[in-house]
Amino acid sequence: MTEISVIGGGSWATALVKILTENKVRVFWYLRRQVQVEALNDEGINPDYLSFVKLDTNYLQASTDLNLVLQQASTILFVVPSAHFPSLCSTIDPNLLQGKKIITSIKGTVGEDNVLPSAFVAQHFGVEAYRQAVLAGPCHAEEIGMGKKTYMTICSANDSFLQQLRPCFSSRYLAINLHTDLCGIEYAAIYKNVVGLVCGMAKGLNYGDNFMAVLVSNAIYELQLLLEALHVSENRIACSSYLGDLLVTAYSPHSRNRSFGELIGRGYSVEQTQNAMSMVAEGYAATQGLYQTAKDLGLNMPIINTAYRVLYNHMAVTSEFKLLERNII
Amino acid sequence: MTEISVIGGGSWATALVKILTENKVRVFWYLRRQVQVEALNDEGINPDYLSFVKLDTNYLQASTDLNLVLQQASTILFVVPSAHFPSLCSTIDPNLLQGKKIITSIKGTVGEDNVLPSAFVAQHFGVEAYRQAVLAGPCHAEEIGMGKKTYMTICSANDSFLQQLRPCFSSRYLAINLHTDLCGIEYAAIYKNVVGLVCGMAKGLNYGDNFMAVLVSNAIYELQLLLEALHVSENRIACSSYLGDLLVTAYSPHSRNRSFGELIGRGYSVEQTQNAMSMVAEGYAATQGLYQTAKDLGLNMPIINTAYRVLYNHMAVTSEFKLLERNII
Repeated sequence: MTEISVIGGGSWATALVKILTENKVRVFWYLRRQVQVEALNDEGINPDYLSFVKLDTNYLQASTDLNLVLQQASTILFVVPSAHFPSLCSTIDPNLLQGKKIITSIKGTVGEDNVLPSAFVAQHFGVEAYRQAVLAGPCHAEEIGMGKKTYMTICSANDSFLQQLRPCFSSRYLAINLHTDLCGIEYAAIYKNVVGLVCGMAKGLNYGDNFMAVLVSNAIYELQLLLEALHVSENRIACSSYLGDLLVTAYSPHSRNRSFGELIGRGYSVEQTQNAMSMVAEGYAATQGLYQTAKDLGLNMPIINTAYRVLYNHMAVTSEFKLLERNII
Repeated sequence: MTEISVIGGGSWATALVKILTENKVRVFWYLRRQVQVEALNDEGINPDYLSFVKLDTNYLQASTDLNLVLQQASTILFVVPSAHFPSLCSTIDPNLLQGKKIITSIKGTVGEDNVLPSAFVAQHFGVEAYRQAVLAGPCHAEEIGMGKKTYMTICSANDSFLQQLRPCFSSRYLAINLHTDLCGIEYAAIYKNVVGLVCGMAKGLNYGDNFMAVLVSNAIYELQLLLEALHVSENRIACSSYLGDLLVTAYSPHSRNRSFGELIGRGYSVEQTQNAMSMVAEGYAATQGLYQTAKDLGLNMPIINTAYRVLYNHMAVTSEFKLLERNII
């Protein structure tokens, strides 16, 4: 594969474009803002995200014209916040995606029905499973920007697509795991945002390292419960594909979900926190989606319940944590 | 239970004595150094560890006379580094422990045969399983000193002993899990020290948060493999009893195993590192014990192998990590 259209201009999109262009894959790149597009085409720098990274302009063509970018390559990579994905898709003519392969790296449930990104793409554009792939893994964009060693999971039911994608993303600092459990990997990527939020709340409430470890241990269990209920439990969950991003988000100071949760834990309201942060915290929407999913599946997931009650029912975070303390082991 | 003899004077012992004395359990406490004993009896302060904690001297009687302390209560709690445990035990007359109940909180394999602390107590003193208990959990002593919320696991095959011990340790900031899987809990407590060392090495080698998450994900898998091989796998591993201490040690800057590993990662030799640190890093001895155990069980455990080859075979840490990178997913 030598060409990919990338849709989305955030830090994770920028990190992925860095890898692709280093691997001499030509990237057609849709971003919303003209100032980003110009800085990228002129100097290979995204002024808004990972601006310390200089991208190779020989392999890069940015544009604010979504339809144009979608036409330019036969593989499309969507890297946008889940909350914006439905409105973005509503502006796309489904005919433009006919026969194309779609990769998503969207870490949240989509739309009012809380469907997985891959399921949304299937429903909305009629893209079959063999034309889809998902990217996941412990992927803090900043570290990819710095070329620090990490692992990425590429997931698809289509083995030849996996084999095509591997060399596009593999590099000296990036080990690639190939995987077929699209649904499980997507749920793990979504759930980890809720964990990040709740760990942030714990930090904001001044809990220590010991409690954080209890929280994360129980989060791993909740994820396991969820994946078992979704019948994907035969897989090894203790690997970077499922737990990598969960652990990064729970522990890394870079995480925006954790920062969001920390402000909530310190007593700010959801509205104040949303105003204070310029980035979207995926965990906010993911909480609602997964709360509903857990309810539908009849699962008791105390960490998700805590996030939901604090963020959506506006319960006091201190008393919800007292309740949580009693519901984890 | 109203009286316990505590053997060992480090930070974890001090934290446990804090909890016990707060719960009005009378503590007879053996410490090696006279200056510690005097400061504790006079002012309730251990000058060497957690010196910010003021213990209640009404419930405390410290002494450098081991035999005296062993005679004073019918329940003995051993909280010493695993490396010192055999030599300590060799000075104890087994008759002194006749009929007594023994609790251990020793996070390493013991002696040249690398046996579990509880097994060593059984062999050396003829103490049956129903007279034994083990303490575990995510237990950074400093946070217990500060009264920060945490969870502790008390483990015994004897339910009435568990019920007796619960009120001795339960408190406002300490939730108690009772457990019967002594062997699995002990192995988890030992293995986590090796993980702490290897995470420290990664930090010293300047790996980032992403890689650390990959490492810890794989560590959870290694622990699972080990526990399955030991036939304790029917238990829920994703809880604070098994993973709590592993996560604290892997991520907390307080961890001495992590500090030890970090110096190794930065290029210091084992000898230089041992000289630079005044505390014993349990992980050093645990590495040898678990390496042998994994070998005996025929398990492939890349994280343990890495620790062993660096610490005992004196292989270069950089090249061992390149190898490790390829052996984890």
